[in-house]
Amino acid sequence: MIQVYWKNATADVVGADDGVTAADLDAVSPKVEAALDTVCRQADAGELGYVKLPRRTDCRDRVRRLVEAHRPGTTDLVVLGIGGSALGNIALQAALNPATYNLLDQAARGGPRLFVLDNVDPALVADVMDYLGDRLETTLFNVISKSGETAETASQFMIFRQMLRKGLGDEYARHIVATTDAARGTLHTIATAEGYDMLEVPGDVGGRFSVLSEVGLFSAAMCGIDIDALLGGAAQMADRCRQADWRSNPACVLAAVKYLMMTAKGKPIHVMMPYSNRLYSLADWYRQLWAESLGKANDRSGREVFVGPTPVKALGATDQHSQVQLYREGPNDKLTVFVSVAAHPADVDIPKAFPDVPGLSYLGGATLGELLAAELAATEYVLAQARRPSVTIRFDAISPAAVGEFLFLYEFATSLMGELLDINAYDQPAVELGKKATFGLLGREGYQDVGEEVRAFAATDERYLV
Amino acid sequence: MIQVYWKNATADVVGADDGVTAADLDAVSPKVEAALDTVCRQADAGELGYVKLPRRTDCRDRVRRLVEAHRPGTTDLVVLGIGGSALGNIALQAALNPATYNLLDQAARGGPRLFVLDNVDPALVADVMDYLGDRLETTLFNVISKSGETAETASQFMIFRQMLRKGLGDEYARHIVATTDAARGTLHTIATAEGYDMLEVPGDVGGRFSVLSEVGLFSAAMCGIDIDALLGGAAQMADRCRQADWRSNPACVLAAVKYLMMTAKGKPIHVMMPYSNRLYSLADWYRQLWAESLGKANDRSGREVFVGPTPVKALGATDQHSQVQLYREGPNDKLTVFVSVAAHPADVDIPKAFPDVPGLSYLGGATLGELLAAELAATEYVLAQARRPSVTIRFDAISPAAVGEFLFLYEFATSLMGELLDINAYDQPAVELGKKATFGLLGREGYQDVGEEVRAFAATDERYLV
Repeated sequence: MIQVYWKNATADVVGADDGVTAADLDAVSPKVEAALDTVCRQADAGELGYVKLPRRTDCRDRVRRLVEAHRPGTTDLVVLGIGGSALGNIALQAALNPATYNLLDQAARGGPRLFVLDNVDPALVADVMDYLGDRLETTLFNVISKSGETAETASQFMIFRQMLRKGLGDEYARHIVATTDAARGTLHTIATAEGYDMLEVPGDVGGRFSVLSEVGLFSAAMCGIDIDALLGGAAQMADRCRQADWRSNPACVLAAVKYLMMTAKGKPIHVMMPYSNRLYSLADWYRQLWAESLGKANDRSGREVFVGPTPVKALGATDQHSQVQLYREGPNDKLTVFVSVAAHPADVDIPKAFPDVPGLSYLGGATLGELLAAELAATEYVLAQARRPSVTIRFDAISPAAVGEFLFLYEFATSLMGELLDINAYDQPAVELGKKATFGLLGREGYQDVGEEVRAFAATDERYLV
Repeated sequence: MIQVYWKNATADVVGADDGVTAADLDAVSPKVEAALDTVCRQADAGELGYVKLPRRTDCRDRVRRLVEAHRPGTTDLVVLGIGGSALGNIALQAALNPATYNLLDQAARGGPRLFVLDNVDPALVADVMDYLGDRLETTLFNVISKSGETAETASQFMIFRQMLRKGLGDEYARHIVATTDAARGTLHTIATAEGYDMLEVPGDVGGRFSVLSEVGLFSAAMCGIDIDALLGGAAQMADRCRQADWRSNPACVLAAVKYLMMTAKGKPIHVMMPYSNRLYSLADWYRQLWAESLGKANDRSGREVFVGPTPVKALGATDQHSQVQLYREGPNDKLTVFVSVAAHPADVDIPKAFPDVPGLSYLGGATLGELLAAELAATEYVLAQARRPSVTIRFDAISPAAVGEFLFLYEFATSLMGELLDINAYDQPAVELGKKATFGLLGREGYQDVGEEVRAFAATDERYLV
């Protein structure tokens, strides 16, 4: 169970210049109600594929079948994907398995080691290739791409497919699970021709909303995560997000506060700061969801608006020793969203080791969980003292259900933000030119002109090299 | 060798509203010259301890002696530290050892596995305790704290000291290296009384400037990193940073561009985006250096200024699928500092696997390094097209020397930024109240009042819980 606590974003706590007032809420209320109405209607009309995912049994059934087939013989699972085909997978694994997972024995892990290769960094890929060299026979690759033509994923796929063919001969195809479009596309064609096991990227779900589809569920289930509980939590949150009284609807409150902060309170930077290492990767997932969905040059009538809050991730308590100086004393341009955990997966007693040393004795007898909770309360307090607003998303525990709730909450809040900002939250037009420029530089047919232009642009001008 | 390429931050490329003009440079020139003069004089007067570190042989000698003593028998090294006592350690390890380092055999690693525990997250600590359970005899703990009273590090120290005592009896003290003040303080006292090996946190170097001291060097050398080359690179950069013609001085150019961006071009957000997984953790190190040094409420005459660029980290090419949509189409409020690598530690050929598939064939025959370089050039280009300025820091290779250069470059640029902004770049006053609030919540003698106040503040007001 998660809850949104937003008192520290109100004018009562941080003042009317930097906090939400009753008048702000009244003013924004019709917009929020309209946004909720629109998003619910779109969902009911079947236009928002991601909203259906928590209750789609076909996805989890396909995942379960493949997990049953592959889990017993697999020691290492490598996900080849990037962006929305990686961030959710990483976040689920980090949240719901130990930090030392890959170092544990097979028995202690209960599933394969997991590597999510979400970059084409040559050293990274070479390091992982070296590591996998003598265990290819028990390694499974899950290549995730709707089209199969994402340059990074396609490159990795070709590299590891060749490695498998060289190492295992005709057996290689049994070591690849392709998660791709159900009916068409380059990867679909290859996977069908070569006989890979296949999973679906739902056609009506964009990459950054796909974590609760087969995209995110397969690696999670392979690593022993209870995907039924995950989806159950998401389904519960989906119900809460339809609550018509918007002030009792967590997604509406979150969106309203964030919208007011960026439009009326001069807070274009939205920090997410979990007080939990396990939940830290959720902030990376959020970064993509927020930046790609809401960073837009044009509104839906084509007017130039150049909007979009900048998502920033931070980690408590660690970043108290790194970022909080800035957050408290720098420009008052941030909303911080803390993420707290009431009951951690484990707790550790701090021994009463030095009862006579004043700088240490007060710690003895507390637990690390208590220390972390005190540090969060202290940080909420010191930010509020400096009139810096914050919101806290409270997890009762780091459970699959709570993580599912969180994921759905942010997805739905993103849809609402798109309505409030009057932008298309589901496209990413700015990414296209970069792809074309890369094609051109690599000599892809039809992109020679842009390639020439980028090459000329990129030629080093020695006057500016110091 | 590293170089700063700044053409894409000029008005020629991105226009005069968003890029640096010749007139901007002329206007800022006297300020930069004065800042350089001041910082060099402070360095010559011995007031800037960090500037001396690259050539301090005493530090590396002490480190080398302890490494020789401990490395042969150590399979696992655990650093207990936070902030400046962890970020540099993590950055050096990530940059200069394989991503799979902890998974490799002892022979392939050439040093112990490394865990840097920079948080008091109870699940994280419990996971690592479980992992270490049956290998305590070959585990070494390096506890790093100038005073010994940093709550997070002190708690971890007490926990692992107890674990060692229970597991190893009187032998426990041989499994702790304390890096602390040379003459006084809580940890100094305990380490002396209990007979730990000791290293020094230099008295005249602040935590966030300490990576090239014994703080950062010990774990690096234990894991096989060539610290002489690291320091040699830093020393070379120290010389380049004294170049009086500031337009040929990389630290001055970096500081001048960043200063102009934040003060004259409406760019308060400074992204660091390495196109290299290994260099990504340098961005975390930079985040602390930049935020704590430059995020200040008051200038040196006590006037309220609330300055400080917000550092943000991103990873290329990964974040092209996450953040670049926002960077290109969102508010034009960012300067992006790319970090590029000419020759990666390894490269991987992309096979010509599907010569007849148009969406894949252009990739075959390239290397991952070439793909990554093309993606960087494409991103520089698309940002410039949208009038978004960028700077690129170019590494010839990911070598200890180049990393040393980078670290010193940013430290010196931070000093210059402090002068340009007329703030104290070496303190962190905002952190103190948070510490007091934590003390109060945990019942430390003398902090009951603030404890009561924070407790009242933190009491849940159910009206704001959704």
